[in-house]
Amino acid sequence: MSYKNELKTSQRVLMGPGPSDAHPRVLKAMSTPLLGHLDPEFVTIMDEIKEMVQLTLQTKNNLTFVVSAPGSAGMETCLVNLLEPGDEAVICIHGVFGNRMADIAERCGATVKKVEAPWGQPIDPQDLKKTLATSKPKLVAIVHAETSTGVLQPLEEISKMVHEAGALLVVDAVTSYCGAELKMDEWGIDALYSGSQKCLSAPPGMSPVSFSDRAVEVLDNRKTKVQSWFLDLSLVKNYWAGAKRAYHHTAPVSQMFALREAYRIVLEEGLENRFARHRRNHELLRDGLEELGFEFLVDPAYRLPMLNAVRVPKGMDEGAVRKQLLNEFNIEVGGGLGAFAGKLWRIGLMGESSTPNHVNMLLSALKMIMK
Amino acid sequence: MSYKNELKTSQRVLMGPGPSDAHPRVLKAMSTPLLGHLDPEFVTIMDEIKEMVQLTLQTKNNLTFVVSAPGSAGMETCLVNLLEPGDEAVICIHGVFGNRMADIAERCGATVKKVEAPWGQPIDPQDLKKTLATSKPKLVAIVHAETSTGVLQPLEEISKMVHEAGALLVVDAVTSYCGAELKMDEWGIDALYSGSQKCLSAPPGMSPVSFSDRAVEVLDNRKTKVQSWFLDLSLVKNYWAGAKRAYHHTAPVSQMFALREAYRIVLEEGLENRFARHRRNHELLRDGLEELGFEFLVDPAYRLPMLNAVRVPKGMDEGAVRKQLLNEFNIEVGGGLGAFAGKLWRIGLMGESSTPNHVNMLLSALKMIMK
Repeated sequence: MSYKNELKTSQRVLMGPGPSDAHPRVLKAMSTPLLGHLDPEFVTIMDEIKEMVQLTLQTKNNLTFVVSAPGSAGMETCLVNLLEPGDEAVICIHGVFGNRMADIAERCGATVKKVEAPWGQPIDPQDLKKTLATSKPKLVAIVHAETSTGVLQPLEEISKMVHEAGALLVVDAVTSYCGAELKMDEWGIDALYSGSQKCLSAPPGMSPVSFSDRAVEVLDNRKTKVQSWFLDLSLVKNYWAGAKRAYHHTAPVSQMFALREAYRIVLEEGLENRFARHRRNHELLRDGLEELGFEFLVDPAYRLPMLNAVRVPKGMDEGAVRKQLLNEFNIEVGGGLGAFAGKLWRIGLMGESSTPNHVNMLLSALKMIMK
Repeated sequence: MSYKNELKTSQRVLMGPGPSDAHPRVLKAMSTPLLGHLDPEFVTIMDEIKEMVQLTLQTKNNLTFVVSAPGSAGMETCLVNLLEPGDEAVICIHGVFGNRMADIAERCGATVKKVEAPWGQPIDPQDLKKTLATSKPKLVAIVHAETSTGVLQPLEEISKMVHEAGALLVVDAVTSYCGAELKMDEWGIDALYSGSQKCLSAPPGMSPVSFSDRAVEVLDNRKTKVQSWFLDLSLVKNYWAGAKRAYHHTAPVSQMFALREAYRIVLEEGLENRFARHRRNHELLRDGLEELGFEFLVDPAYRLPMLNAVRVPKGMDEGAVRKQLLNEFNIEVGGGLGAFAGKLWRIGLMGESSTPNHVNMLLSALKMIMK
């Protein structure tokens, strides 16, 4: 292609680690002519989106909004606002995204203690307990759904420990949000970030976030300025929640139109129905993959339904087959990240991409390739 | 409205400080079904966009790409990557955005020296000269088109001074880019950021940036990590320009489709034609506004064609009339920012919003309101 030509893309079936397929209603909403970012109509849309983020996170948190950038900026928003130089942070690491949180916390000038689990396993609460016994962290950060390994991390026991230690609980829910149970208030999560392009099935580029009252108190008592101006919540909150909506930055208006429609679709389906659908299609995929000789990395008790991490059958050239799936069948599945590069597939069944048709298309294509 | 209802928006005419109207071709491209952010087809699109950023900035800089967030994140990208704690930075301030740069530079731990001009006037090169005589800054940052005041800042004389002082020149070209002459290489600009939603007429949420070889050398010789993980160019560049495109964050795929189409429209028109169109429509607006009793804030020699800062006629309730323009005519114009709140209008004629029809619609509506 050349930029001189009109945009031509293949009609992909997105079954990687995100983005997932967007519903035509979402694409249509996104192409609505623009509004100004301070237009009263747009401010109403921001309010509606905030309400839908609250509903889907099952939270009453007032400081709930959408960061105007991808999930990794949501991660950075949580950490740079809560940490100051010299603070202690415990970061739980069982994959790429735990490592990323540790990296960011160190860039905040925090002293980082790591609690680790082998990739493919969840963090053992007892390991966290030992670390908390000898430290006094301001926050503990943990990934709910590790996109690099396919592990679902139980949070309730960990949340109790963290609060008994007087710390805040920060959770990465990028991949689980809107695809598996996630109860921000009931589980005692103090700061949470997600992404728009996974089980929410909006286009990538936005990050829903929410902060508990406990977290807001910490924000209000900072001694130093947040190191990022763009992500500084003391400024951003005046745009999202101030009585007089003050200009901070220009919101991604079109993406917000898309996000609004994606949320409407989630709420029309209902959270419980949506979670059940993600489980059902995961089981369908699992049965088919196991028949074909793929092996799941993660123990059934901790498997993510929306992100299936599997070892390819012995002797299969994983890169070549992924390329064939893309080129001959227009199906995208993800390869391994970090230590798992070249060793693993990550098959996404997220949001609009979690249907029996998606599962059947992939399994049938694999059968044709492997026979 | 309520989130339970379908998205309904008024058909606005965007004549504020951005976003500007998007061309239907841009909206249509944006609604193209998604590609994965590492899909070979998407990587090709990134390459094409990079080439079009280079063409429109008139630069050969290899480190040229688009930040996956609005212009203020582009500003932060330039400053956090070039500055380290203890560095000296000279920031030129003649409006809101100069102040923002100073704020960010301080958050980087830099010692900031300010060179100021009254709002509505450009920076006097002689004032900068005096400051440079008593300092040894790593960089000098200046706004080319101050969106808060409507001032176009001449850069060539300043660029010479900055380089004679051994410093880097950082330029905010958010509002001038693709609407007025801007020659990155010829003018010796070392780091530049812009926004997608002004004269480029793409949706808001992206920031084209470029770094000269001199600036890249500074990046390569940093002693400390960049304080932002999301904006750290040592990581981002592997996604945008690495031989093997390494995952960093998930790019805003749909917005990039839109951006590609917006660039194609710019290049089909040609830069010189586009600049001339912006000048012509500015003159048409100027003549009409002056007849109606509006007064331009800025001396003709330094006026921005795409952002017209005007004092409203004596006795006019500026807030009420702006509201009337929006509610009765669907026309958005901007109010004053900072010290100019309640005192100024900022009328944008940017990209697709720079047409004789836009000018005529606004002038005629004003006549109806004012009679």
